[in-house]
Amino acid sequence: MSGGVVVLTGGVGGAKLVLGLQQVMPAEGLTAIVNTGDDFRHLGLPVSPDIDTLLYTLSGKANKAQGWGREGESWSFMAALRELGGEDWFALGDHDLALHVVRGMRLARGDGLAAITQDFARAWGIGIGIMPMSEQPVATHVRTPSGWLEFQRYFVERRCEPVVEEIAFRGASEALPAPGVVEAIMAAEAILIAPSNPFLSVDPLLAVPGISTALQAASAPVVAVSPIIGGKAIKGPTAKLMAEMGLEVSNAAIARHYAGLIDGLLIDAGDEAPEGVVVARTDTMMRDDADKVRVARAALDLAHGLMPG
Amino acid sequence: MSGGVVVLTGGVGGAKLVLGLQQVMPAEGLTAIVNTGDDFRHLGLPVSPDIDTLLYTLSGKANKAQGWGREGESWSFMAALRELGGEDWFALGDHDLALHVVRGMRLARGDGLAAITQDFARAWGIGIGIMPMSEQPVATHVRTPSGWLEFQRYFVERRCEPVVEEIAFRGASEALPAPGVVEAIMAAEAILIAPSNPFLSVDPLLAVPGISTALQAASAPVVAVSPIIGGKAIKGPTAKLMAEMGLEVSNAAIARHYAGLIDGLLIDAGDEAPEGVVVARTDTMMRDDADKVRVARAALDLAHGLMPG
Repeated sequence: MSGGVVVLTGGVGGAKLVLGLQQVMPAEGLTAIVNTGDDFRHLGLPVSPDIDTLLYTLSGKANKAQGWGREGESWSFMAALRELGGEDWFALGDHDLALHVVRGMRLARGDGLAAITQDFARAWGIGIGIMPMSEQPVATHVRTPSGWLEFQRYFVERRCEPVVEEIAFRGASEALPAPGVVEAIMAAEAILIAPSNPFLSVDPLLAVPGISTALQAASAPVVAVSPIIGGKAIKGPTAKLMAEMGLEVSNAAIARHYAGLIDGLLIDAGDEAPEGVVVARTDTMMRDDADKVRVARAALDLAHGLMPG
Repeated sequence: MSGGVVVLTGGVGGAKLVLGLQQVMPAEGLTAIVNTGDDFRHLGLPVSPDIDTLLYTLSGKANKAQGWGREGESWSFMAALRELGGEDWFALGDHDLALHVVRGMRLARGDGLAAITQDFARAWGIGIGIMPMSEQPVATHVRTPSGWLEFQRYFVERRCEPVVEEIAFRGASEALPAPGVVEAIMAAEAILIAPSNPFLSVDPLLAVPGISTALQAASAPVVAVSPIIGGKAIKGPTAKLMAEMGLEVSNAAIARHYAGLIDGLLIDAGDEAPEGVVVARTDTMMRDDADKVRVARAALDLAHGLMPG
């Protein structure tokens, strides 16, 4: 592959795939387009969880055991916040705060989220392109039996406990793709969908009209890495959510969800192939760096095989 | 003294006097009106150095050795800020950040600085009233041979090295006293001026028209504690500044500066009394708590002696 790979990605699972891709292809040919539906203002500061997870993962700063935030984080700010009676349901580490404070200062000054994100990546020596899906606010909300919840209230405060009856991406239909997003998609040789939660992490990207239009118009094959292994989700609330929405937790359901969008689906070696989509298999569980490289290669190979000519 | 003592105060020196006063009179009768001319936005966050010094001092959190900030502070945020190439000339500790973040969030929500400050004081068990001089922005600037500098650029970044040719309190003439300030002054039995820098910390308060008018109209005696001992300033740039402005570093110069405002001046036991003002003496150097109590008592006694009837 000579370059021009675009990955649509959410949080931790997606970041693992991008880390693998970074090791098997030139950084300058790789662009991650990141879900911002989880973004919110907390204590007045703009938090972009999926962008930050990717920045921390690619710069080697991620706390792998915890699954979020930075390695070697300290928590003095949270302690002082509690002394003041401040809201402490969402943990902001002392180092982590720097991202949010600088982002907030620059947004207030009129800078765009795309330029800010790219500057963060550059400051940390990350060579790939990292783009927010949009610079306009898109906010994922979930409807539960007790009403609508903002995504972080559901995901962090309520630890995904409420049953999800409906998902909405507020603002998505009016949101424009961030600068560079459409160009990257149109110029791509391969478009990958990371094994992030299809409903909570990838769907917000697809809900931005300019992105779905570009994906339809793009000549590159679109390959998704399935987040399902052996009828279970690798991580997070995917399986629980699928069950709540009346979906079978299977690759067939993933293939149906992405029908009309994807040309190929990478599934786990032990899983049955769904119909109606070109399938490739590998061990898709990404524990260590070798796993990430293997999955990245398998996804690229599948895309390569689907290229015209 | 049955109550109703108001102190006009700036940073560290003033906070020591207020701490002494807190120990010799009922907290509910004591109100500190605090300079906000040093306030500024840093990284988009609203920093109120003199208010925060008072909050830290009265709650036992102040870093006494350092002379600013909190005891046991950690610096992870600053380390992460440097990684991002952020401005690091002004140090924001991890705990300290909580004050600025919560203040910023509440200001953005439309809350006033007076209510926010009082809530902070209450959260930390501080019983006295702490009021910003104004809720409108007043910004101390100093003119140096190379041009005007914002106060923190002069004080922190340049460590008071530039020669000061002129001082301006931008916004002061249009600023209103914060809610409660005029009422506290008018109801006071005694009004004290802390041994803060008269030119940089007390003058901004006096430059707010509603405050100077209230001080003139108030029936209570006004007593200043001199920041000069033996021809030297106790702390900070007071003496250097006085020399640069062509003033003799003496209690006489302090008395002249406050002429028409003060009825009494508390000076150090070893110093000569200036003319034209009632003087009392004590050892005015405040090293430990006993010193602070002694100076507080001496200032209150002087005010008491000056009360009508």
